[in-house]
Amino acid sequence: MVYYTKEISYPVSNTKDSHFTIAVDIGGTLAKVIYLSSFSHTLKFKTIETEHIEQLIQLIHRIIRKHNDEIYSNSILIATGGGAFKFKSLLDNEFGSLGVHIIQLDEMKCLINGLDYFIHEINGEVFTYNENDGELPIDSSSQDNNNNTCNRAYPCMLVNIGSGVSILKVTGPNNFERVGGSSLGGGTLWGLLSLITGAKSYDQMLQWAQEGDNTNVDMLVGDIYGTDYGKIGLKASSIASSFGKVFQGERNENNLQTNESESSQSSSRSSSIHTTSPTVPEEQETNYNNVFLPEFNNKDISKSLLYAVSNNIGQIAYLQAKIHNVERIYFGGSYIRGHLTTMNTLSYAINFWSDGTKKAFFLRHEGYLGSMGAFLHDKNQIQNQI
Amino acid sequence: MVYYTKEISYPVSNTKDSHFTIAVDIGGTLAKVIYLSSFSHTLKFKTIETEHIEQLIQLIHRIIRKHNDEIYSNSILIATGGGAFKFKSLLDNEFGSLGVHIIQLDEMKCLINGLDYFIHEINGEVFTYNENDGELPIDSSSQDNNNNTCNRAYPCMLVNIGSGVSILKVTGPNNFERVGGSSLGGGTLWGLLSLITGAKSYDQMLQWAQEGDNTNVDMLVGDIYGTDYGKIGLKASSIASSFGKVFQGERNENNLQTNESESSQSSSRSSSIHTTSPTVPEEQETNYNNVFLPEFNNKDISKSLLYAVSNNIGQIAYLQAKIHNVERIYFGGSYIRGHLTTMNTLSYAINFWSDGTKKAFFLRHEGYLGSMGAFLHDKNQIQNQI
Repeated sequence: MVYYTKEISYPVSNTKDSHFTIAVDIGGTLAKVIYLSSFSHTLKFKTIETEHIEQLIQLIHRIIRKHNDEIYSNSILIATGGGAFKFKSLLDNEFGSLGVHIIQLDEMKCLINGLDYFIHEINGEVFTYNENDGELPIDSSSQDNNNNTCNRAYPCMLVNIGSGVSILKVTGPNNFERVGGSSLGGGTLWGLLSLITGAKSYDQMLQWAQEGDNTNVDMLVGDIYGTDYGKIGLKASSIASSFGKVFQGERNENNLQTNESESSQSSSRSSSIHTTSPTVPEEQETNYNNVFLPEFNNKDISKSLLYAVSNNIGQIAYLQAKIHNVERIYFGGSYIRGHLTTMNTLSYAINFWSDGTKKAFFLRHEGYLGSMGAFLHDKNQIQNQI
Repeated sequence: MVYYTKEISYPVSNTKDSHFTIAVDIGGTLAKVIYLSSFSHTLKFKTIETEHIEQLIQLIHRIIRKHNDEIYSNSILIATGGGAFKFKSLLDNEFGSLGVHIIQLDEMKCLINGLDYFIHEINGEVFTYNENDGELPIDSSSQDNNNNTCNRAYPCMLVNIGSGVSILKVTGPNNFERVGGSSLGGGTLWGLLSLITGAKSYDQMLQWAQEGDNTNVDMLVGDIYGTDYGKIGLKASSIASSFGKVFQGERNENNLQTNESESSQSSSRSSSIHTTSPTVPEEQETNYNNVFLPEFNNKDISKSLLYAVSNNIGQIAYLQAKIHNVERIYFGGSYIRGHLTTMNTLSYAINFWSDGTKKAFFLRHEGYLGSMGAFLHDKNQIQNQI
């Protein structure tokens, strides 16, 4: 995997009384930091693990040292995400005591403010992707006849995939509603994969997922039907059950749930249930052996689980978009990591479920919507709060 | 776990020219068999692994031997599920050659016919369940003023959870549409759990799930926020990310995605992205150690994954019910196995997402909807087909 740096050149204010701003979105797993480099006048994007909050503290100190001449008193730390609340005391003690002004912002509002900025201000930020067409840039920043930027982006859904998933309906730069979410997100994929494969990095797992063959672990429609299930439009190659090939062969007497004790002679019209417990296995021939779990390949497992989680998020996103009558679905959050199979799966799911009526969009700064929204927190508002 | 036998007394025809019927629903993982015991006049319900199709063949031979005096010529084998198609030649060779009349039926139609029968003909079949109220029987077989059985069941959703999930909108005993499905079903739960824990039986995994504490592996809202996220109605105890506590601590330089090469001096109003690759880590202090995966407990893992899959199915079922404006959601399929935590989770999900406007219903013969529908295949139709 090649990772691209993601600097963005940024207009610098001519007035010298401006503050030095550091924005941080502290999520369940990752903290995302944005600040303006004093050397290059570009926005810098950094990610660090939340569980190493002390390293985030050190990073903020280094940034103030290098990019604001170690002046704390005109520095502003704008924090969002759950960690802005969880670590409030820590941040106050560490930076408030040095004169840094600390602002806490609501995570969802920052997400949509960041989304709005990236869509409308950054050329080449938004794109679509699928395996057939590759990557196609979307220009959302065109201007209408009155020289106003068009809000062609709205209404839209924002599906933010971090450790978990948040789904927002966004009707304008400041209008949104969190309509749903899911606990099956990035934390689930990486957690389960690391448990099963012992992988030690995201990149290892993504590399495996790129190379694997999920059909060795997934049960396809063709595995069940021997062919398509045409009547309901399912192809033989469709995944009927993720990981459905793994646990075949439980050999347990409870699979035979009835016995032949001819206890009931009832033949009344109003049927009734006989619940005699516990089960006594009937057939002598059914002494199955204990289970045999064949070895499954880490690559195949990685691809299967990436498919399962991504497909699932795509389906839930589609269903929410259908309920809310929205066509455009933006995917953000640190889950995607620019990984092609992930984006293809999300795009495929949206296209499949919506019969092509809805579309998936991706962003180059996918993981930084929240911290971007925090960074952009209106300077006037900051002035009023100080 | 106590498993109950599930015999149902069944009215026996007075005419002696009736056929001997065996119905089988051959799914991806399990084959479900129903026949009428010649001794007790009760319906017998049996489950056997599909991968041991030869054992299913032997079971059918034994049933004909014991319950139809080894007379094949008036025996009818009604097969549904994917395996009815996949194993058609096998069944033809094995039984067709002995004079058994073999009928293949569409799986979805059998499911809803079976559902209709269980709801309207079997007292005590349908119930609701949650941890607070326990199990409450639902009487769907009451009669209206004209002495007709009420179809209070319709419209409804049928969520059939086997290896995978099918979701049907049912508007009457013979009217339905498969509106969706999911590949995250029983095959996924058992497949992943057996890979992670090495468990060898469903019962082992369900027992663990009953005893475990998912908060040791799941990331809760409180873990991220330190408190509730009241603004969007999420309690501290809500699961933000299933398995979100497992893979904390990737220590990989790619987490730092920017470098400090001060390459851009641009401060133009129209911002642009600089994509210089590959990444060079900036900070010396960020030499993280390799990952350390602590040991996680099989019980906690089992509970977390049971929650994750069940919650997910519940959410998708709710979203489909919302789109199709249906209040009653029946859960069928061999996934549930009468397991209380599973039913509670499904009920909770439906109640949570619908704000109490929709309700989950369960069936005692949950795994046998398809084979019941096949068994009931109209006798006249059979006569015409022979």
